[in-house]
Parts: sequence; C-alpha cells; structure tokens
Amino acid sequence: MAQPLRIGIAGLGNVGASVFQLLSEHGDMLLERTGREVRITAVSARSKLKNRNIDISKVKWHDNPVDVANDPEVDVVVELMGGSSGPALDLVKKALDLGKPVVTANKALLASRGAEVLDLLKKSKGSVSFEAAVAGGIPVIKGLREGLAANRIKAVYGILNGTCNFILSEMSHTGAAFATVLKEAQEKGYAESDPSFDIDGVDAAHKLSILSGLAFGCVPDVKHIEIKGIRGITPLDIAFASDLGFRIKLLGIARQAEGGIEQSVEPCLVPSDSPIAAVEGALNAVYIDGDYVGKVLLMGYGAGGNPTASAVVSDIVDVARGRALPLMGIASERVSSLKAANILARKGSYYIRLMVLDQPGVIADISAILRDHKVSLESVLQRGRDPHQAVPVILTTHETTEESIRRVAEQISKLKSVTEPPYLMRIEEFNG
Amino acid sequence: MAQPLRIGIAGLGNVGASVFQLLSEHGDMLLERTGREVRITAVSARSKLKNRNIDISKVKWHDNPVDVANDPEVDVVVELMGGSSGPALDLVKKALDLGKPVVTANKALLASRGAEVLDLLKKSKGSVSFEAAVAGGIPVIKGLREGLAANRIKAVYGILNGTCNFILSEMSHTGAAFATVLKEAQEKGYAESDPSFDIDGVDAAHKLSILSGLAFGCVPDVKHIEIKGIRGITPLDIAFASDLGFRIKLLGIARQAEGGIEQSVEPCLVPSDSPIAAVEGALNAVYIDGDYVGKVLLMGYGAGGNPTASAVVSDIVDVARGRALPLMGIASERVSSLKAANILARKGSYYIRLMVLDQPGVIADISAILRDHKVSLESVLQRGRDPHQAVPVILTTHETTEESIRRVAEQISKLKSVTEPPYLMRIEEFNG
Repeated sequence: MAQPLRIGIAGLGNVGASVFQLLSEHGDMLLERTGREVRITAVSARSKLKNRNIDISKVKWHDNPVDVANDPEVDVVVELMGGSSGPALDLVKKALDLGKPVVTANKALLASRGAEVLDLLKKSKGSVSFEAAVAGGIPVIKGLREGLAANRIKAVYGILNGTCNFILSEMSHTGAAFATVLKEAQEKGYAESDPSFDIDGVDAAHKLSILSGLAFGCVPDVKHIEIKGIRGITPLDIAFASDLGFRIKLLGIARQAEGGIEQSVEPCLVPSDSPIAAVEGALNAVYIDGDYVGKVLLMGYGAGGNPTASAVVSDIVDVARGRALPLMGIASERVSSLKAANILARKGSYYIRLMVLDQPGVIADISAILRDHKVSLESVLQRGRDPHQAVPVILTTHETTEESIRRVAEQISKLKSVTEPPYLMRIEEFNG
Repeated sequence: MAQPLRIGIAGLGNVGASVFQLLSEHGDMLLERTGREVRITAVSARSKLKNRNIDISKVKWHDNPVDVANDPEVDVVVELMGGSSGPALDLVKKALDLGKPVVTANKALLASRGAEVLDLLKKSKGSVSFEAAVAGGIPVIKGLREGLAANRIKAVYGILNGTCNFILSEMSHTGAAFATVLKEAQEKGYAESDPSFDIDGVDAAHKLSILSGLAFGCVPDVKHIEIKGIRGITPLDIAFASDLGFRIKLLGIARQAEGGIEQSVEPCLVPSDSPIAAVEGALNAVYIDGDYVGKVLLMGYGAGGNPTASAVVSDIVDVARGRALPLMGIASERVSSLKAANILARKGSYYIRLMVLDQPGVIADISAILRDHKVSLESVLQRGRDPHQAVPVILTTHETTEESIRRVAEQISKLKSVTEPPYLMRIEEFNG
C-alpha cells in the first residue's frame, strides 16, 4: 500500500465545503481507485466558526492560508479561495516553491497570470491542476489536454457561463425582458448582486482564454478576446431569432484562422435544432473541433459546489495516481504567446436589428449601404407598422467580414430614419 | 530528451491506416505533447501489397501479427485486427507476457473475454488501453475512469451505435420504412452487408458492457444485458412518438438499481427537446450520471477511421506520458463480477403499439387488462378508422414495472380483436 496522500484545503466556501464532504464521503472508493488513502489533514478559511455542515474538528486549522502550503503534513495544496492576486497567488507561489502539487478552481489566476504561473512551474517540482477552473464538473480540460491530444485543434467553443445561459433560456421561455429575468436570477442565487462579471462576458472570457491556451499551446491571455455581454438582448431579438430558426446563446469561441487565433465572447444565433441550442438553464457545453476526431461536445453543470468538487477531486485523483501533467499539456518552456488574428478580418454571417421610422425609402437606403459594402442580404423581416414611432426591422446577411459589417452598421446609424444604433449578432452554424 | 516510443501496429484496415497516417502527420506535435518521439517501427496486416495510401516501406513488416509483440524494436503494441479470439487474442497475450503495453480498439475482446484479459494483466507489467473500443473518437473511457473518478456512478447511458442512429434519424426525416433506409445505409457504407450485429443491438451491448464495467468496477459481461434491436420499429412508431413529443433512439443503459445493475440495449422514446434527441445520423452520445457531478454528456463521431484513430493515439499519448491505468480503473484483483438486477423489477413508463380491429369494446377490454395489472394510462391515441382492417392504437403508461407491462402485453395479445403482438418501448426521460 502506498503512503496516504495528505490534502490541505485553503478556502471553505461552497466549493471547498463540497470538496471536504466528497473526500470524507468517498474515502473508500478513492482508495480503491487510486491505491492510496486520500486524507484531509489541514484547512484554512476566513472564519473558523462558520457553519458549513462539515466536521473540521479533526483536521489542523491554519489562520493564514499560506501555512497550508508550509504544513509538512500537507502533500497537495487545494486552492479554493479565488482571486488573481493576494492570498491565492501567495499560496500557489509557496506551494510551488516547496515543490508541492497545487489543485485549483481559480480561473482568474490562470487567465490573468498564466505567464507568471508558467514561470513558477519552470523552477518547481510541483504542478498546477485546474479542471475545476473551466466549465465546473465537465471534464473539458482532460478532454482537451489528454482525450483529444492526438489532434491539431481547429476550434474550441461553447456555452461557458451558466448565469447568462439561464437568463437567455428564461427570456426564451417566458418572453420576459432582460432586466426582469436578471432580477429573478439574482433572487434564485443564479446571479450575483453585482452581475456584471457574468453578464458582460468577463467570466466566460477568462474560461475561454484557458481553453484557448490548452488548444493552441499558448499562454492564456484575456486581452486578445473580443468581449460583448448579453445586456443588449431584447425579447424582440429572441422572438425574431426563433422565427428565423435560431436560438440566442452567449458563446465563447476560439479558432484557428488565417493569421492567428480568433477569440470572442458574444451572443450568437445558433440553429434551433442543433445540440447546443438544447443546452438549457445553468448548463455549460463545450465543443472541441479536432482535425482527426471532428467535433466533440461535452455538456454538464458548469458551476455549483458539488459539480465543481467533482472536478477538483478528479485532479486530486490524478495527483494520487502520479499523473499530473504540465499546465498547458506541453513543457512550460515551449508554451508561446498567443498570436491573435485581426478580428476585422473574420468572416461570418450576421443578424442586424434596426429600429426605423416607417417611412418610404428607408429600406432602399439601408439596402444601398449593404450593396456599397458588398454585403449580401439573406432575409429582411419587419413586424408591425406604426407611422408614429420606430418599428423593428431585422436583417440577416450571407457571409461577409467583420470589417464590412461594422462599416455597414456605422453608415446605417447615420440615417435619419434609424432611431438607435444597429444591434449586431453573429450567426454561428459551425459547419466549417 | 526521453527515448523514442516505438510503436508496432497489427491491422491496417480503415482504423489502422488512419493511425499510421496520424502518427506520421503529427509527429512534431506529439513530440511536443509527450516529450518523446512517437515512431512506428513495425506493422502487420493480411496483405502487404494492398494500397492504403500510406508508405509502409520504412517500417518492418511482419507476416504474423504476434511477431509485432515479439519484435524487440516495438515498445507498444497497437492491436487493430478485431475479433475476440484468434490472432488478436494471441497478440494481446504475447504482448502482456512480455510486459508490453497494448492499445486496442477491440470491443469484442473486452466484452467477451474481460475476465481473461484481467487475469493476464494480474501477471503482467504491461497494460491494456482501449479508448477506441467505445464511441470512437469520444473520450468516454477517459471521462469515466479519470474525469469523473471522484463520483459514485449512478448510471451511464446513450447512443452507442452509429448505424442504428443513422437509420432511425433517416426514418424520422423521411418517413421511410426500416427496410428502405437500411438498404440506403448499406449503399452508403453506414451498414454492413450483414447488418445484424449493429441493428440487433449486439454492438451497442458490447460497448455498454465495457462502460458498465468501468462505471461499477466490474468485469464487462454482455450476458446480463437485455438486448432488443431496431428491426421492429415502423414509420407509425416514429410518427406517433413525434406527436407525443418524443424521438426514438436505440439506447444502451446501465444503472444502479435496487438489487444490482440494470443493463439494457433497446429502442426508447426520449423527449424531442432533450439534447440526446438532437444527436443525429452517425453520431454517438453518452451520458454519465455521477453523484456529485450530476449528468455529463459526451457527443461525437462513434466510428470511422479518423475519429477512431484519434482515440487510439490518445492512448498512445498516455503511454508515452507514462500514464496508462488499470483496465477497469481499479487494481485488477479488485474487479468483481457484476451483480445484475432482476430486469422484471425495473420501473419505467412505456409506449405500447397495438394493431386492433376497430370494433366496439376493444378499448374497454384493453383498459380492463391495464387496470387489473395496476398499470395507469397516460394517453391513448388512435388514428384512422377502418371497419375492414386493423388500425393502430398507441398507449402510453405512467410508471409501472417491467413485469406488469410484460403481463399486460401477454394478456392483450390474447384478445381476439388484437391482430399482432403488442410492440413495447420504454419512455426514458432520465429525470432521476
């Protein structure tokens, strides 16, 4: 029998408490699956006395989380505090200094300080595992770094934020406005009281940067990601998209394009009968497109204590089995900076929502602008006529470039009969 | 730099040739991802001269596949001949005798001789990796054995046979009869000239037995699987199911029930708006339901040279990274025989297709039988009236037991006004 693997957990919030519970409840099973006893020996959290429905009386308590790494009776440091600096970073540094493996759910740390973590790893005998940092319980890091390791990755994309997906699903089912559904989501605990990190696409961008790093062997870096959140989506868009055979989803997309990697987080139209359209509520889903395997979809719960704990403990199982891998799947010295493609060069078809005064000649003016920029119309939808106020007109285009569509939007917004700036969304059918 | 990993491939059919091509094409990438050169040194196949669009002139040729294992310049034996006995078994035995790792796509071998392979492994320093044996390119073995290793698995189920899924998808889209679509599938190469292995559910059962073994730490064994294929499905069933809000899919299901593991392969009704209903054509999809993670879905191409090669080479990557695992994820000595649940005790709701003469009192007779067996009706559909010949009547039930529904079917088939045996399908909503 191998030595027990001694676990120190820093951070006992929702996820930390679930990890504690899982390790306590499934001790026998984990012993069978790893050949080693997996034993929690130390914890640290903000408050020792908070009720978490777990019994921490038999493990050592550290007031300072960094002491979890320093503890000689801790073999693996589980960092569940979050944050890209401060105690989380200090703890990871200390653990790697001491050559101890780290397991973390901290996406902000990897997305903002990927280069720093890679530098630390070059000098350390330790490792950093982060299955829980992206898409909660879905084993997407393992899928990308191991399961599809035989493939050159063409693209990785999907629904990476459960809060946005819940809001868009609810808007779709109820026809309610964004603000109404957001409030409901906040009441149910699906959205934070300050929801901007989720609904403005920042959380999804953090996750995408990590997937992109794995897919293309690069340092995760959010700064190359084009980000648009879901605040601008109206019940009108949901209804028109549905009539056109689409659902609206906030997608993170990273793909190999001419000249580099294209990365974006933005609401997109996806075909109603596609599997990704059927991903409802707080679920996440990630497609990985490899040159030999084709497209593989992974779907499941992207957040929550128990699903995230499943991912954290799968990393612990890998450490116990002696199988931790380099951060980005290749030697840290070989990880390069990401070469970003010019976003203006990207191709695609688009959905354009306009609010126009219902006057003779409006559509002719708009059509002329499209023609001048060589953008070809796929469809024009207008609902309702009202001479006294603006009415919605929806255009969809055939394939064009981001540059052309932006110029079109700019020109259209200058028309007197157009009362608000055009709202653009990409139509993603992923047929490539 | 570590030593090169020298690969011997036995079997150069569709998959073997793709593996050869992948390893040749992605040599640099695999070197980067594993830290070792992955080099093919030897091959064996039935005919040396067959044109496969690969250049085998620079590797050693063996007429006898077992010599691939004997070759001192082969570190890893890749078995792609198939078959549960004969040369494939001899090759695996020899490789394990010599302590060499084996990578295989051979589901029949594992499903029929799992216990024998486990015995060989107990005495060997080698390993057997088999990602390609189930669901082609989808990394479901890795997902189950590693990605979700922190969970007690409650169930694993899904679409495991692309031929059947193609046929059912086509029937659904075209309304054509089974025999017509089968012929088309044969012409397109999606079905074998003798299709029974696929359409009678045997192939899916082989795969399910392997998933079940991994999920529950048992020896794979097809003999405990209740198997029904798709020959009996008519366009009527497809249409009625659609009216009721369902699609028909051939599902393999293994789940923890009272008294043991329930295992079945059979056509089932799944809700039309569920992600599994959107799995079309030759795709495969597998759900894994774990106690912490909840339900995780993996979807992708379940067959074909390139997707299967992706899985084979992911196993080679694991071997190159020094990460091969025990066959069933736990020490071979700990793998137990599967304890099967009594299939008659399983619960569920059912779809029943009857052909009845449209005479007064028929529905009353049928209803009385249901009542006598305490089976509660959810809906009754009848289309068309014709006093001269039998018309279809579709019943759906609330939850009952397999035993009750079989008795009901038996009683109903004895009614004079019922012209053919009732056709039963389970309704699987997977809400549990």
